[in-house]
Amino acid sequence: MFVCNNLEILTEKAKSVKFIDHLIGKKPLFILTISNTKVAEMPGITVAGAEPELVKYTPTADAELLQYGECKSISGVPATPDGKPTPALITATALRLARIPYLIVDAGAEIKPRAPYVALGAEGAAENIVLKDAAPLHVVERVFENAESLGRNIAKTSDYLILGESIPGGTTTALAVLCALGIDARGKVSSSMPRNPHHIKTSVANEAMKRLNVKIGDLADDPFKAAASLGDLMMVAVAGITLGSLGSIPVLLAGGTQMVAVLGLIRNLAGRSLKRIAICTTKYVAEDKSADLKWLVSQTAKVPLITTDPGLTDSKKKGLKAYGEGFVKEGVGAGGSIAAAMLKSKFSITKPKILHEIEKNYETLVEKKQRITD
Amino acid sequence: MFVCNNLEILTEKAKSVKFIDHLIGKKPLFILTISNTKVAEMPGITVAGAEPELVKYTPTADAELLQYGECKSISGVPATPDGKPTPALITATALRLARIPYLIVDAGAEIKPRAPYVALGAEGAAENIVLKDAAPLHVVERVFENAESLGRNIAKTSDYLILGESIPGGTTTALAVLCALGIDARGKVSSSMPRNPHHIKTSVANEAMKRLNVKIGDLADDPFKAAASLGDLMMVAVAGITLGSLGSIPVLLAGGTQMVAVLGLIRNLAGRSLKRIAICTTKYVAEDKSADLKWLVSQTAKVPLITTDPGLTDSKKKGLKAYGEGFVKEGVGAGGSIAAAMLKSKFSITKPKILHEIEKNYETLVEKKQRITD
Repeated sequence: MFVCNNLEILTEKAKSVKFIDHLIGKKPLFILTISNTKVAEMPGITVAGAEPELVKYTPTADAELLQYGECKSISGVPATPDGKPTPALITATALRLARIPYLIVDAGAEIKPRAPYVALGAEGAAENIVLKDAAPLHVVERVFENAESLGRNIAKTSDYLILGESIPGGTTTALAVLCALGIDARGKVSSSMPRNPHHIKTSVANEAMKRLNVKIGDLADDPFKAAASLGDLMMVAVAGITLGSLGSIPVLLAGGTQMVAVLGLIRNLAGRSLKRIAICTTKYVAEDKSADLKWLVSQTAKVPLITTDPGLTDSKKKGLKAYGEGFVKEGVGAGGSIAAAMLKSKFSITKPKILHEIEKNYETLVEKKQRITD
Repeated sequence: MFVCNNLEILTEKAKSVKFIDHLIGKKPLFILTISNTKVAEMPGITVAGAEPELVKYTPTADAELLQYGECKSISGVPATPDGKPTPALITATALRLARIPYLIVDAGAEIKPRAPYVALGAEGAAENIVLKDAAPLHVVERVFENAESLGRNIAKTSDYLILGESIPGGTTTALAVLCALGIDARGKVSSSMPRNPHHIKTSVANEAMKRLNVKIGDLADDPFKAAASLGDLMMVAVAGITLGSLGSIPVLLAGGTQMVAVLGLIRNLAGRSLKRIAICTTKYVAEDKSADLKWLVSQTAKVPLITTDPGLTDSKKKGLKAYGEGFVKEGVGAGGSIAAAMLKSKFSITKPKILHEIEKNYETLVEKKQRITD
């Protein structure tokens, strides 16, 4: 049995218990999909970068942190302007602790990582959806085809997949796509800030839909068009990997709002009820009072919503404690990677153990670097 | 025991039996590394392309054939000017039959495949070593670092690796690197033609060494320099993946002469005796009277040399039968993939079964296409 105070089930309880039970002791593969959208350049949309100019480096630096335990394209680690560090710190720690293998997938990162990554035929960043389509339809279809083929093939190496993402501004494209698919997510998507800038996100989504003359639900029958015109390439890649692998192994979509948009695309592409798929995220996102993840998931598909507690509220480190105070909250599949580390180790990797390792990495990657810079 | 007429051991018999025995029923991962060298543009060096202009597409098309069961960047499949098809046909068939997962790694393919591939920070094709260094040292070091990190990580997904390559002109760069490392391979490297153009290959290697004022063995202490000045990026990537993964799982270098050059680099980089590594190739290469693979391997390292018989001499198809008559012989890890298919299936996938499937694919991909073109 999976009884453990670090995994909580918010939807589909019976299904979820079975789902989780099935993963204990199994061998997962973690896939981080990195991408950029120019929506992130709009003021006030995201704090995923210490300075506006650094935001576009965040997915790349997250990938490098995962692969090499340090960033190569920027000094230090990605952080908010006031120094809260990237969730990649959590993910890298959890994966390393549990010896979980990973792949980095590029679905349109503006700067390519100085690390091995799987190319899917995406080029640079997706466009700002207010001004034009995110990407041409043929690029979306190519990325999806490659992602699906990768998923089908790579599923043979593992018992299940955990799919995380890094794309600054991604909750806004998620909002627009959810709306186009028929889920009015306005005012319900999460944010990496305690003061959720719903008015900016909603106005971006509204303007983009107006540009296309699309109303809530208008693109429910055309998920590729929804992603191409209003979304980003991360969601296309993750949807493709999921649909490719779901035939043979279970998939954990590791994230909040953005993974609900991916789930929406998957549901509409598959055209059937979804099995062996769950959303797994941190409790910080699920408990975010400025958003409603549980409602979003329940509107999208009958799948388990599982949350983990990274235990950062107990941290002595200010930058980590902030996660429990509404900052950052999730990203880079942090929640899913903690769940996977606990599951793979049959819960011998505990919340305090993970926190201890995260703090050690924080000391090396954030505090020491700060001292050098000061 | 592994008793099977399709696996023959040519060196290190006791070690080899143990090595093979250990792999039966285990789960491998196949990695195809694709690359180009401008050496292939020199007349008479290679027949890996129906026309000279198509040679550079061969690695890309091989990768696509593996991933999608058909090529996307060229029509039909890569072939010699007289229509002998690429060994990717064999590899794709064996991997599919045995449900073996694979990854495509790009180590400087001139044309990037329309398929998912792992980028290692290599750019385009390596230079012609007669005229200049194959690649800058910093590129070689970057590709190696990324490859080693990929190997270390991906080894966690599998019980062993099978590493194949596709790089037209690669036996000539292999020759030059072996010479620089101290193994005088002149007149001993294999060829995809029955009339082995040793004089051209030797003259390229000699001229390249003269350019650098390097004599046999002069770069034995500097394998990176040997690869950067006289080699190609395929060998750097495969050496890196091997050294990254060898700490935790066994590795089959799937190929002939070119894998001996990789083995030479690995030996000199590791600076210790090598365990859990073997060379596995088709009997067509091992029995090539115009070359001496057994001698090359024994001069390089005390590792098993294992050969498989793809059984193509029994084929009714002219293009396949030609493999047994000295054409093509090997490539794209064909020999290793057949061995792996047999081992994974505990020999329930037999030589006739593989041949039957290869012939079916030949009918679809070569004969039908020809009829359409005719």
